[in-house]
Amino acid sequence: MKKYNVAILGATGAVGREMIKVLEERNFPVNELRLLASARSVGKKITFCGKEIAVEEACENSFKGMDIVLGAASNDLAKQMAPHIKAAGAVFVDNSSAFRMDPNVPLVVPEINPEDAMKHNGIISNPNCSTIITLVAINAINEISPIKSIIASTYQAVSGAGAGGFAELNEQTKAIVEGGEIKSEVFPYQIAQNLIPQIGGFTDNLYTTEEMKMQNEGRKILHLPDLNVTCTCVRVPVLRSHSISAVVVTENKITPAEAQAAIAKAKGCKLVDDPVAKAYPMPLDTSDQDLVFVGRVREDLTSENGLALFCCGDQIRKGAATNAVQIAELFVK
Amino acid sequence: MKKYNVAILGATGAVGREMIKVLEERNFPVNELRLLASARSVGKKITFCGKEIAVEEACENSFKGMDIVLGAASNDLAKQMAPHIKAAGAVFVDNSSAFRMDPNVPLVVPEINPEDAMKHNGIISNPNCSTIITLVAINAINEISPIKSIIASTYQAVSGAGAGGFAELNEQTKAIVEGGEIKSEVFPYQIAQNLIPQIGGFTDNLYTTEEMKMQNEGRKILHLPDLNVTCTCVRVPVLRSHSISAVVVTENKITPAEAQAAIAKAKGCKLVDDPVAKAYPMPLDTSDQDLVFVGRVREDLTSENGLALFCCGDQIRKGAATNAVQIAELFVK
Repeated sequence: MKKYNVAILGATGAVGREMIKVLEERNFPVNELRLLASARSVGKKITFCGKEIAVEEACENSFKGMDIVLGAASNDLAKQMAPHIKAAGAVFVDNSSAFRMDPNVPLVVPEINPEDAMKHNGIISNPNCSTIITLVAINAINEISPIKSIIASTYQAVSGAGAGGFAELNEQTKAIVEGGEIKSEVFPYQIAQNLIPQIGGFTDNLYTTEEMKMQNEGRKILHLPDLNVTCTCVRVPVLRSHSISAVVVTENKITPAEAQAAIAKAKGCKLVDDPVAKAYPMPLDTSDQDLVFVGRVREDLTSENGLALFCCGDQIRKGAATNAVQIAELFVK
Repeated sequence: MKKYNVAILGATGAVGREMIKVLEERNFPVNELRLLASARSVGKKITFCGKEIAVEEACENSFKGMDIVLGAASNDLAKQMAPHIKAAGAVFVDNSSAFRMDPNVPLVVPEINPEDAMKHNGIISNPNCSTIITLVAINAINEISPIKSIIASTYQAVSGAGAGGFAELNEQTKAIVEGGEIKSEVFPYQIAQNLIPQIGGFTDNLYTTEEMKMQNEGRKILHLPDLNVTCTCVRVPVLRSHSISAVVVTENKITPAEAQAAIAKAKGCKLVDDPVAKAYPMPLDTSDQDLVFVGRVREDLTSENGLALFCCGDQIRKGAATNAVQIAELFVK
């Protein structure tokens, strides 16, 4: 089997570190692994397959000889480095939102639209985390009858704000128990034992950027240009799995039993839907693994052709790192 | 002003204790306050207006001489005591769900349908907590144009399961910080840093009893027999305020600005909706007060005549105790 030279841009963040873990777990055929980050991380060492690798500063010349670059950095750094990655002849699988809506850049969830990845011009974008988790959950429904609209309310873990979000929830939780001062630096308000109904900045239509991603990215991934999505994104005091309560309206009627049967067979999904046994998706159960758990499937009571459901998935893994590595796997020969 | 003899049935629970506090805060014209609970609470003393009152065991003869009985007990105890309360000539304002759907029993949110209370035959039911908070938030919209449907996802605090729910989240949080064993007795699974998408038992249509209350009780309170509601109820690790993400479809188009203006003037509501200032409803801000905070008002992107919004309210107060005392106030002369 051919082995690949892989670079990780932003290797020391929550998603970058998870990418290293996922490459090892999935036995990705790595020849050289190059770990790139900002100057302040230079010299840090991270273990990959039993070998310590020193973090290097990301610069224009960092990509020579690389086959694949997995991006886990900011939009700005992704934009700055993209031409140099392309010039080096590597494929850039980018988790930032910088290129997602560029018509020349495929936006890929491997369980849904792997064929799109083959049309790349050097860059493939990894979608938004809540979008990935929701679309993996409902893709089987869309394959039975095209989805016309989605109303989604999210319950998003603090890991979505990176390693700092994780630390902030843990520190605030400690302060609640021990009586210390509650400091909010990553989030605008206390998140422990609270909810914050804002993720991303506000746009002109009063939705946040995060909320509009589900419609914009959903249209592109599902090839449904007329898909309408009303999304409300809420940060919750949960560590790493995102959950979504969704109502999905399809062109034709699908019964809950038909949907459940399709979800049970769908790639990347685990149907967890047994009310008698109190079995339904919960964020604690989906943490640190790659499947999207789907349950609470039932008829929408407000439309003829709607289904309601609840799904959870690990934001750092399937919502980011694993999806990016799965995209890279599409090119392994 | 006339003074009233008031009994509280279930005086030692989370809602009962809050009723005592609310009666005092609102200067309800109390002559005698009688505190009734189960045998195991007899002898406990609770302070009301600077005076200690001993808890008595609730029995058939407990209601003689009472004008008003505020019920904060189980459905079973409410059903058992209702005939005796009626025989004693008192009005029973009951927070249990025992009588809510009885066509002879008014179901009242004083900001919405106070006139219904006047048609009582001895019993007036206090609605479900999430239903009260959601309906107070959207009543002003319904007054502009009748609501046809609601899609709601809830973020419900642990206080909805009573004082035990409160204690369980606190104990689990302590165990997370201190490394102890996490015990789940009130909730079926760990709730700290987790979500549980089940509140109440499951019904034949795969919705929970809690989820169906928003449609069933909403129809009765709003006098909208054809109202359709798809509700997903989720327990979140928040102490006492419930939050609801709702999409409301009305007969005629209402702009976000029209809705905001109406909500700002609506009884029982506080409009908190200023994206630039990062102002939106959050459960920490609504705890221990009586208003329902409403924000994130914007157009529904999936329908012609829909609005999306997010609201929060204190579950123990406006969702239960305060609403019951407000119903009693309708009878104060």
